[in-house]
Amino acid sequence: MTLGWEEIRAEVLRRIRVRDWPPGALIPGEEALAEEFGVARATVNRALTALAEAGVIERKKRAGTRVAALPVRRARLEIPVIRLDVLGRGLAYDFRLMADRQVPAPVPVAARLGLPEGQPMRYLETLHLAGGLPFVLETRWLNPAVLPDPPPDFAAVSANEWLVTHVSLVSGDIAFTAEPATPREAEVMGVAPGTPLLVAERTTQGMAGPVTLVRLAHAPGHRVVMTF
Amino acid sequence: MTLGWEEIRAEVLRRIRVRDWPPGALIPGEEALAEEFGVARATVNRALTALAEAGVIERKKRAGTRVAALPVRRARLEIPVIRLDVLGRGLAYDFRLMADRQVPAPVPVAARLGLPEGQPMRYLETLHLAGGLPFVLETRWLNPAVLPDPPPDFAAVSANEWLVTHVSLVSGDIAFTAEPATPREAEVMGVAPGTPLLVAERTTQGMAGPVTLVRLAHAPGHRVVMTF
Repeated sequence: MTLGWEEIRAEVLRRIRVRDWPPGALIPGEEALAEEFGVARATVNRALTALAEAGVIERKKRAGTRVAALPVRRARLEIPVIRLDVLGRGLAYDFRLMADRQVPAPVPVAARLGLPEGQPMRYLETLHLAGGLPFVLETRWLNPAVLPDPPPDFAAVSANEWLVTHVSLVSGDIAFTAEPATPREAEVMGVAPGTPLLVAERTTQGMAGPVTLVRLAHAPGHRVVMTF
Repeated sequence: MTLGWEEIRAEVLRRIRVRDWPPGALIPGEEALAEEFGVARATVNRALTALAEAGVIERKKRAGTRVAALPVRRARLEIPVIRLDVLGRGLAYDFRLMADRQVPAPVPVAARLGLPEGQPMRYLETLHLAGGLPFVLETRWLNPAVLPDPPPDFAAVSANEWLVTHVSLVSGDIAFTAEPATPREAEVMGVAPGTPLLVAERTTQGMAGPVTLVRLAHAPGHRVVMTF
């Protein structure tokens, strides 16, 4: 019986675990492992790719593959369009554009995005609904330089969905925090002020510079799930 | 001047953005792109790897590389040893083992891990300190089958650090929620009951079956940051 890639992965993990291959050690090349296990090189490659993504091994061009010196687990989060996230939960989706105006960037917003203070920005507040109930309150600062002329109508397609499908993001960061609902969040989401909300704050950079700073305040009980 | 991989990435993103290469379309192979851009194939490979990790394109063995049909952003979270996370913030690390006992697995714990109800488990409560202040309260259910004989002393090295460095995890999931501090958490962490805490609940599977279910309640203000 030929081994599958999961079995190759398990055997590589076993050798790392029993310190046959200790932290930092160079492991045999794909060709050598394929020969040893009697499988195709592509099978070994798939197993090693999975282990590299999990942070167990480190692959370098030419320098070969090493056992990670410091085991770091990496988990992946998929950031979907909110509408699709809601539909994926089997709930009806709707949204309401609650604010849309041109405002000079306040200092903290400009600083986070690397834009000059007072730069004209588009400020948008969108309430996303799942099954008719508040799901996420989105507060967004958008660099109008990324918008076409004329700009899209964010009452017809949410800024979240328009940006994901039209603007190529190059890099960014997300910070998760637990915060007491602000009076505004409490009012819009129909919860008591101070209720713990899971908040995600994202900044994104595009090819032509900063794109957006967005705060997503999730309804109580919301779970953000990642796998590894 | 020869183009760098970031410039190749930017040009590929541009073509996707202007719909030269629409969602779902097959894009040229590495060799063809390397020739067109006048760069080494490895440079194209690096650019495409970055775009694949970001979810912009999908690479399949033999079937080639396609523009993702549905743009999904992926962010990566590194899950470090808590001690190293604290030291990385420039703070002194310490921990206190507050509970350590053998308990039959309660139904929800057994169900989450896929173990029989009542299975003997190790229950551990560990308070991690940063700069002498509560940082994370860790509540852990551990499958004793993964431990050597004699088992490690979790008062000497935290269960978190011992597991990361000794047990190869195969897969798992993490869920982030915002929760009001329980009376126990409030007491141990020195905050008012109901204070919003960022809670991470992880389950992990090893080669020989379920490893652990752990709840990490973070001190108020804690930020979990991911990049993409």
